[in-house]
Amino acid sequence: MAPLKVALILYPAFDTLDLVGPLEVYTTRPNPPAEQLFTTRLFSSAPTKDPITSEGRASFVPDAPLTELEQSLDTYDILVVPGAHPDQLETFLASEDGKNVVGLVKRFAKLSPREDAKGVRVLQSVCSGAVILAAAGVFAGRKATTHHFCFEMMEEYAARAAKEEGSESAKVEVVRKRWVDGGKTSEGVRVISAGGVSSGIDASLWVVELVGGEKAYKYVEEVMEFERRGEGEGWGVEKA
Amino acid sequence: MAPLKVALILYPAFDTLDLVGPLEVYTTRPNPPAEQLFTTRLFSSAPTKDPITSEGRASFVPDAPLTELEQSLDTYDILVVPGAHPDQLETFLASEDGKNVVGLVKRFAKLSPREDAKGVRVLQSVCSGAVILAAAGVFAGRKATTHHFCFEMMEEYAARAAKEEGSESAKVEVVRKRWVDGGKTSEGVRVISAGGVSSGIDASLWVVELVGGEKAYKYVEEVMEFERRGEGEGWGVEKA
Repeated sequence: MAPLKVALILYPAFDTLDLVGPLEVYTTRPNPPAEQLFTTRLFSSAPTKDPITSEGRASFVPDAPLTELEQSLDTYDILVVPGAHPDQLETFLASEDGKNVVGLVKRFAKLSPREDAKGVRVLQSVCSGAVILAAAGVFAGRKATTHHFCFEMMEEYAARAAKEEGSESAKVEVVRKRWVDGGKTSEGVRVISAGGVSSGIDASLWVVELVGGEKAYKYVEEVMEFERRGEGEGWGVEKA
Repeated sequence: MAPLKVALILYPAFDTLDLVGPLEVYTTRPNPPAEQLFTTRLFSSAPTKDPITSEGRASFVPDAPLTELEQSLDTYDILVVPGAHPDQLETFLASEDGKNVVGLVKRFAKLSPREDAKGVRVLQSVCSGAVILAAAGVFAGRKATTHHFCFEMMEEYAARAAKEEGSESAKVEVVRKRWVDGGKTSEGVRVISAGGVSSGIDASLWVVELVGGEKAYKYVEEVMEFERRGEGEGWGVEKA
């Protein structure tokens, strides 16, 4: 199988590790190299290729502007949406670029998997990136998680999206987990949400297993010296 | 106490998460914000501010060239050195820029802590970044760790550095741990080495505890939804 194509979205003040956790997992060199499962590309939320500065003040040069991703969206198999501090996220979602990203997420959720991708198409949020997916209405009638500071924010955006769609009964069920497999859309896109920050690593390792099997994800774990934590395990200081 | 100043080094093909793990820990916003413990700055290994592309193909714009760090080195309290794939690291260490970084690490290890930094000055490697510290001779007579693929490489570079210094008896003791506190140099710089990739998060959380106490590091853990793993715990697939 040709490598799956992963698109990752950068927007102003995105959380650095929300992005880099999945990026590291998907770019870890396999052994042997011929078994490469993924290629990655970083897209700006803006229509330009100007650098974007993350929360934590790392400045990234995107590979391409959002317009390129909009035009080639159906060639991507995995879309990764990182989170941000709630204040920054609120500002972004109210902006033109934010609305474009929400629109793109909505479109991605309705694309059937590519024929040569073995039925795999994944829409994946990390941390408060789930709020962007909620704003796109993709969690309607599904289980999902997000950073534990953002449960209410996600519910609000999901409720607003449901109202716009005239389907207020289709609520998101917010759960407190490391990551959640929310199942597939009717078109076949699997919707995965990770909890806060570092949880994007665990969810991505699960995607590696989904695509490449146990051996593949165990090898990435070994290289990263990281032991994937369970979907349903607690996290952090306060347990649910 | 004024925030401690953290310098992080970027060089061609550095490992993305090696850098971003510590960056995320040191830039997590404290609550209340007045308790900010660190400020960070990303330095290129080159004398220019051109973007630097990591392993994993993320392109970072440094805040400043190495020359700026060379000129202001004694104002920095923590120096973070990420690793890279062994091939890339070998190439870098043989280059002019690589030699400059080794020279800078050597100098940093001999700077006494700043007066207003409560006695804290930390030299910190992540993953195979330990090989750079080994090349600078700072592990002589100390315990240290690195990515488990790089134990021999680290020993070789340490032996070469010891030979150059005419102190061949002062060997590095390579141990298989999540991270190692190698103690302080005679000038008072604490030398900390982390194991592979994700282990830089754990080591940095330990530095947060060192600087800000238990409450401070527990809060960063909570925000990152990450539970610090023990210094001496095993990791990865193969256990020692």
